[in-house]
Amino acid sequence: MSQPSTHPTSSASSIVVTGDRTTGPLHLGHYVGSLQTRLRLQETHQPFILLADTQALADHQGDYRAVRQSVIDVALDYLAVGIDPKKSTILIQSMVPELAELSFYLMNLVSIARLERNPTVKSELKAKGQDRNVAAGFLSYPVSQAADITALRGTLIPVGADQLPMIEQTNEIVRRFNRMVGEDILSECSALLSDTSRLPGIDGKKKMSRAAGNHIALSASADKIHQAVNNMYTDAQHLTIASPGQVAGNVVFRFLDAFDVDPLHVAQLKAQYQHGGLADQVIKTRLDEQLQALIAPIRERRAQLAKDPDAVLSLLLCGSAKARQTAALTLHKVKTAMGMYYF
Amino acid sequence: MSQPSTHPTSSASSIVVTGDRTTGPLHLGHYVGSLQTRLRLQETHQPFILLADTQALADHQGDYRAVRQSVIDVALDYLAVGIDPKKSTILIQSMVPELAELSFYLMNLVSIARLERNPTVKSELKAKGQDRNVAAGFLSYPVSQAADITALRGTLIPVGADQLPMIEQTNEIVRRFNRMVGEDILSECSALLSDTSRLPGIDGKKKMSRAAGNHIALSASADKIHQAVNNMYTDAQHLTIASPGQVAGNVVFRFLDAFDVDPLHVAQLKAQYQHGGLADQVIKTRLDEQLQALIAPIRERRAQLAKDPDAVLSLLLCGSAKARQTAALTLHKVKTAMGMYYF
Repeated sequence: MSQPSTHPTSSASSIVVTGDRTTGPLHLGHYVGSLQTRLRLQETHQPFILLADTQALADHQGDYRAVRQSVIDVALDYLAVGIDPKKSTILIQSMVPELAELSFYLMNLVSIARLERNPTVKSELKAKGQDRNVAAGFLSYPVSQAADITALRGTLIPVGADQLPMIEQTNEIVRRFNRMVGEDILSECSALLSDTSRLPGIDGKKKMSRAAGNHIALSASADKIHQAVNNMYTDAQHLTIASPGQVAGNVVFRFLDAFDVDPLHVAQLKAQYQHGGLADQVIKTRLDEQLQALIAPIRERRAQLAKDPDAVLSLLLCGSAKARQTAALTLHKVKTAMGMYYF
Repeated sequence: MSQPSTHPTSSASSIVVTGDRTTGPLHLGHYVGSLQTRLRLQETHQPFILLADTQALADHQGDYRAVRQSVIDVALDYLAVGIDPKKSTILIQSMVPELAELSFYLMNLVSIARLERNPTVKSELKAKGQDRNVAAGFLSYPVSQAADITALRGTLIPVGADQLPMIEQTNEIVRRFNRMVGEDILSECSALLSDTSRLPGIDGKKKMSRAAGNHIALSASADKIHQAVNNMYTDAQHLTIASPGQVAGNVVFRFLDAFDVDPLHVAQLKAQYQHGGLADQVIKTRLDEQLQALIAPIRERRAQLAKDPDAVLSLLLCGSAKARQTAALTLHKVKTAMGMYYF
């Protein structure tokens, strides 16, 4: 069994596959959780980054037109933070039909019971407040993910700890397929665990997400950022400036840890805050400055790129075509191994 | 809601879609249940006939190579009984990847609970003695069937009564899709109910099937046919030639009803048998002659065709390419309606 790894450089020849369900513009949670990793990986690993529009459909029933806009939004976010299409292959899932086709075949290798036991699926179903009435497409999305990874020959998959069961499910399918055809056609993959623990939302409670409404978008205006920082919880017991304050559980410090470019300065602020004599407003102003400095150039690049959506789509077309070559080759091997090439 | 129809001629412009899961050579049950109907329909309706090799995979876990051989076997059976590739479009499911792709999209429109309630799925699961451990691919095969029918624009689907829930499931998906996109992109279909009640196996108990081992293959040797007829139950109470015999439940008469070219003669035999004075051997000899006369030319044409499998595969390639044009156009409309065409 493949072990999760936190050392990407130990496998320079690994093929990185990652991506996002296109359910809306990205936010700071994505920046910390995955975009930073991708910016690092694109210097050494030429990752495939997948815009999972077909997977997003399951989330967008009745509002499916939002999927198309989300594809453009997420691509704009990628490019704005510095994902470089010369180094990373950005593809649209629905433009590589081989992914759906492979998914269809792999469905024969997983039982319904096994899909229902998948902890990631279980917790997402719980979050949706649904169970047996969920769309078949949603329950089978671990299979779709396994198809995406294996079709693109992915061997190193950056994930958060909550996604580890998906990696294990993928490898289970890979082993079952290879055992069935008696050849190592598909490759197992390893998880590249994110170093950073999940960024909380501005409410400090759940992890940051659009669904929870506790996010700061990567395209947030200066005002929005300012307002979000001002509304953050600090320490409810920190009633006067002079009194000592708590750092643990303090949302502003969680964000400073994640975003301040000067960790030494943050350490000093923490000490001062815990000792007493540091106003909440001081640390909020510091965080506001840091986030404005991070987001302003992203927002500006994004606005610039958004003026020419055709150019963005053209990049996605190229990326999809490139990915399709890899996926088509995998599918050819898969179908041949199953005896399904007739000519 | 579309009502099952037994009047194909009432809809000359209907598009007929039919086919078989390729799980082995066909038998007399297929001949009575579907092939005869197809021979009639191909004169007026240019049906699509689908060799469902990907669906058969779910049945062939661990023996997947059998699927490929079965595709050739079934195609040989089609051609041997008179399916004419100039009139019928015979296609291989896996060679029209748009079918898998559409299936993938339609999966978002059906809940797991709904699939589990599908009576056809339920009874097939029961027959398999499995339930939650069944492959996800098996549970979702009504969706795959809906994709096959709708991708090929099928509006008239020849089925046995046990398959009616599949037609209803397809129309449910069609309505849901059209409602979602606000346009009539996919078409509802009607069932063309088979006039003939299902042929029993030679054991007279279950319906004829390879799985039950009670079948007579369309390529059966003269000896096999002879042996099968000899082993058929007649009337266990018919102990002497002189005593009256039962016609109801008499397997030999069920087969004579289905296959004797001279129904008047069968009626005479029945009267004589019920009256007493007709030996079992007489009706068995009659049936043997009839089946030999039916199967011998099929077997010979089949043996002839089997000498050049490349020619057979070539026909299937042409049929698949033709079907693919229709399916690709449907998929284009489906994806456009969902906002999933980006260029």
